[in-house]
Amino acid sequence: MKKTKHKILDMLLKHPDIHLSGQKICDVLGCSRTAVWKHIKELESEGFKIEAIQKKGYRLLSTPNELSEARILVGLKTKELGQHLIYFDSIGSTQKETQHLAEDGAPHGTLVITSHQMTGRGRLGRTWSMPKGKGIAMSLILRPKLSINRIPQLTLIAAVAVYKAITEVTGIQTDIKWPNDILVMGKKIVGILTEMQTEGTNVKAVIIGMGMNINANKNDFPEEIRHVATSLKTLTGKEHDMSLIVQTILFYFEELYLRYLEEGFSVIKWMWESHAVSIGKRINARLFNGKVLTGLAKGIDEEGALLLEDDQGSIHKIYSADIEIE
Amino acid sequence: MKKTKHKILDMLLKHPDIHLSGQKICDVLGCSRTAVWKHIKELESEGFKIEAIQKKGYRLLSTPNELSEARILVGLKTKELGQHLIYFDSIGSTQKETQHLAEDGAPHGTLVITSHQMTGRGRLGRTWSMPKGKGIAMSLILRPKLSINRIPQLTLIAAVAVYKAITEVTGIQTDIKWPNDILVMGKKIVGILTEMQTEGTNVKAVIIGMGMNINANKNDFPEEIRHVATSLKTLTGKEHDMSLIVQTILFYFEELYLRYLEEGFSVIKWMWESHAVSIGKRINARLFNGKVLTGLAKGIDEEGALLLEDDQGSIHKIYSADIEIE
Repeated sequence: MKKTKHKILDMLLKHPDIHLSGQKICDVLGCSRTAVWKHIKELESEGFKIEAIQKKGYRLLSTPNELSEARILVGLKTKELGQHLIYFDSIGSTQKETQHLAEDGAPHGTLVITSHQMTGRGRLGRTWSMPKGKGIAMSLILRPKLSINRIPQLTLIAAVAVYKAITEVTGIQTDIKWPNDILVMGKKIVGILTEMQTEGTNVKAVIIGMGMNINANKNDFPEEIRHVATSLKTLTGKEHDMSLIVQTILFYFEELYLRYLEEGFSVIKWMWESHAVSIGKRINARLFNGKVLTGLAKGIDEEGALLLEDDQGSIHKIYSADIEIE
Repeated sequence: MKKTKHKILDMLLKHPDIHLSGQKICDVLGCSRTAVWKHIKELESEGFKIEAIQKKGYRLLSTPNELSEARILVGLKTKELGQHLIYFDSIGSTQKETQHLAEDGAPHGTLVITSHQMTGRGRLGRTWSMPKGKGIAMSLILRPKLSINRIPQLTLIAAVAVYKAITEVTGIQTDIKWPNDILVMGKKIVGILTEMQTEGTNVKAVIIGMGMNINANKNDFPEEIRHVATSLKTLTGKEHDMSLIVQTILFYFEELYLRYLEEGFSVIKWMWESHAVSIGKRINARLFNGKVLTGLAKGIDEEGALLLEDDQGSIHKIYSADIEIE
């Protein structure tokens, strides 16, 4: 159920060329003119530019590039993903919050999102740093009826969805680095973290977290990570509509996810491999026992494991590692 | 670090035949006589019977059968399991609380425990009902460095530990019903629920929950579950020391767990199979797609899956099901 504010925004977005009178909005939505005025003021405070002309009414001039709950929800073209949206002005970690919500029964498709994450975390307990207001941290709950060993595939589906959304919204081509990073010119713009809650051999919930650097300037990053991290703004010289990026990721993610449930992993595997920077290259894979395997990245298998051919011609299946292209 | 109260209880337990003067206790523990007196009163209120004779001192006459935090901790013979004990007089669900604690970083061996669980849950979102003060609900955090597919084995280790502890403390022989129930004469006295938190392909935490019916009378159970549930008291006609049962379970669990990490699953598999009621019998296994498989339960495999031989002689591996002995 959308809030009145979201319905007003929806009307304004659908009529970019005419002024909508307060009375007209009242009539359609069945609320008072004071209520309309208050919601318009709220939208303005969230960065929407709205022209108000006496006796004519309201017209939307522009939407903000900043993340906006209303902007994400209005026009979100998904059935489930993100429809239960929990927006925070700031939060410690969306992933931690979402873990708790999932444990407490939050439904499939629940999305926790912020543009100000203070203590974000990445894989293996690493931190994830994000300049305030200039990036997106979000965590999505999925409740798939899949066996545990198929869950790592969802990370790869998420990577393909992010790839498609960024290309569509910004025109930038990205690379996927196994298993969970989206890179542009070798620097990370998106990290994906997939966690799971199981009971016995049943999957109760999968929580897919994404950290995205969108509108940060180079100097917004701590100096020690500038050589590995970048943002869409740094690359294109302009700011991007963060809410539209979120909408588009959710749209593609749902489309790919439903297709995957229907048809299996092979079509996703093909899409993933065709954008993966490491495939066909020599890589070093640092395993978590400290061992480093070196060889040719051949592709991924049906479970999403990375296949590495060493110099003796043996194929290794890699489930978890840090990889580096030689 | 044990509290002063626990140290006093420890002294009293170690000297059952003599009176310990307040002054002596003060000297050993370095606290005031008023503090000693207050702790003695607290122990009395928790059900410990303590004789206090002027000029002689204190002597412990008996320990309560009720669950007691002090009684569990004093004399707990484990290195890690249960040493970080979080005791609740009452709680909604120990499993849910422990999931949150694990997500927030609680260490390996953390135990959340109560004898008054109000909204306990079992497998597959079922409820777990426990008469107030007469049973034990506890949830243990393990942080094993194991691959995901080995985690179901931990349920079986827990079942063997519970089996051994109940036999040792009460003399009752129990049966294990795959995968997670402990039965006596076909009725359930303990249920085990194993849940897991993962990140990618790494196990972050395993939460093993146990619900145990110890000192309940037949009439304490809701009528609709009396035909399937029972308690140790109903079977033996007397009450049992709940804290001692917990201590003993933790002791055996740790012993078996460390042995399993060292030597692998085969010795546990053998112990498990030798107490499993279903092995060698004809069973019906209701799978979660509604399908029912009927046949002979042959045993479990190295991953802890149940092996069922159908009437055509085919072997089915069952990872999750409700089973019923024909």
